Amino acid sequence: MTIAMTASELEAYLDQVFPQLHIGGRTYFVEEVGPMTARMRCDYHEKHLRPGGTISGPTMMALADLALYAAILGQIGPVALAVTTSLNFNFLRKPGPTALIGQAKLLKLGKRLAVGEVALFSQGESEMVAHATGTYSIPSER
Amino acid sequence: MTIAMTASELEAYLDQVFPQLHIGGRTYFVEEVGPMTARMRCDYHEKHLRPGGTISGPTMMALADLALYAAILGQIGPVALAVTTSLNFNFLRKPGPTALIGQAKLLKLGKRLAVGEVALFSQGESEMVAHATGTYSIPSER
Amino acid sequence: MTIAMTASELEAYLDQVFPQLHIGGRTYFVEEVGPMTARMRCDYHEKHLRPGGTISGPTMMALADLALYAAILGQIGPVALAVTTSLNFNFLRKPGPTALIGQAKLLKLGKRLAVGEVALFSQGESEMVAHATGTYSIPSER
Amino acid sequence: MTIAMTASELEAYLDQVFPQLHIGGRTYFVEEVGPMTARMRCDYHEKHLRPGGTISGPTMMALADLALYAAILGQIGPVALAVTTSLNFNFLRKPGPTALIGQAKLLKLGKRLAVGEVALFSQGESEMVAHATGTYSIPSER
Repeated sequence: MTIAMTASELEAYLDQVFPQLHIGGRTYFVEEVGPMTARMRCDYHEKHLRPGGTISGPTMMALADLALYAAILGQIGPVALAVTTSLNFNFLRKPGPTALIGQAKLLKLGKRLAVGEVALFSQGESEMVAHATGTYSIPSER
Repeated sequence: MTIAMTASELEAYLDQVFPQLHIGGRTYFVEEVGPMTARMRCDYHEKHLRPGGTISGPTMMALADLALYAAILGQIGPVALAVTTSLNFNFLRKPGPTALIGQAKLLKLGKRLAVGEVALFSQGESEMVAHATGTYSIPSER
Repeated sequence: MTIAMTASELEAYLDQVFPQLHIGGRTYFVEEVGPMTARMRCDYHEKHLRPGGTISGPTMMALADLALYAAILGQIGPVALAVTTSLNFNFLRKPGPTALIGQAKLLKLGKRLAVGEVALFSQGESEMVAHATGTYSIPSER
Repeated sequence: MTIAMTASELEAYLDQVFPQLHIGGRTYFVEEVGPMTARMRCDYHEKHLRPGGTISGPTMMALADLALYAAILGQIGPVALAVTTSLNFNFLRKPGPTALIGQAKLLKLGKRLAVGEVALFSQGESEMVAHATGTYSIPSER
């Protein structure tokens, strides 16, 4: 199984289609794309902070959604406009004020629907801080 | 059933504990707090946009989480630090480039766990753009 | 908006396609079908019991899935084979040893995807015992 | 990390507290308990069938819930009465008419809340047929 886009191609594509992600400072990066997988990083930034020095839920949710989206585009390429149809999150531990890693893995890549899961970690830590699953609708006209 | 905080008290409290929410422009507002309910609004802002003139998923997710949090604090007051333990989202329609409304309703407010649902709408529209459910852990020491 | 099948047509159809539901005793019934809604009932039966005199989680989950399925077929008729793609449950209170009602409402009925929510109650009670949301894939060849 | 109950102790315990599981034929078995993990099997039985020769959603949901419950009791023992608070399912492929395996793994085992995920497979197959996550409330009085 080959990949359709490299990490740097994907990052350039995300920059182009989601320029608003970087308002107030660039923090989201594609670290790696593999068969049915993608790893993204969200660097620490004051805008992601919450009281007690933890990273906000929406920051984690955005990272998980992006990592799944990257895993899908890594397989099918930039032509298809996949749309998030559902997301489920379990928040396990409060992440410290550091970068977050989102490791996404597709569980199914069908013609119309992709399903995947994401494990979120604080960079350099081994305990998962959050877990997500998501489903994406894939347009039929590709 | 009375409420523990008014909409303006809640908004002031959210400003104090989540100042980072407003980086790049204040967009989240508490519109109404009632028994087991809260309504929040997220004003249109360039930072929430996505290609095609729609509002980003993370913006909707942040609004849903905040609205449920507001509904809980509206019942139990600002002393308790409720923590989001899980969130589930279904994205139904693409919201247009306008303000979003999050109408939250608690389904259960137990001693340790609160559960609620949120309907998200584009302001002035009647069709739901997204639906969320969430669970929150409530500290026992309150 | 009209409905494509009445409650009794739907019940006959479910009997035909899901005969295994009734092994050990018929307990699932379609009470009402309306525009984008359906109400189903699961009668009390020893096979649904759990310790402490409560109804099992899988019984509630089956009822929720069936009620959403009934709401979809009530709109599009028996020709289409909708398939459950995801389900999310929040269990709120332990239901007593009595019949359960599942009130389903579709939030979206698209060409390819239907999304709905279900409120579960013990018959005659007003407090929700569980809440579910579900997504269903609808075949394009209908 | 040691386990608090062996697979056979767990199976005996489930038989005792959930005798209704076996009405119409015993099909649920505990295959293995490990640190933060449990594997359960649901044998093929006519009562689990659906049209097209596939296994019903509620059968998969019951297996996932049981496997997570087994993983929790495997860690904390039979004294504590854990209660399912939420479950999320993604149905990926239709399982054939054969036994199902549920491989559960706890992502968090806190004092009050346990969170885990389950991968469901048809016995002998490598492609996941469904994925679930669940949260369980653990009584404080243990």
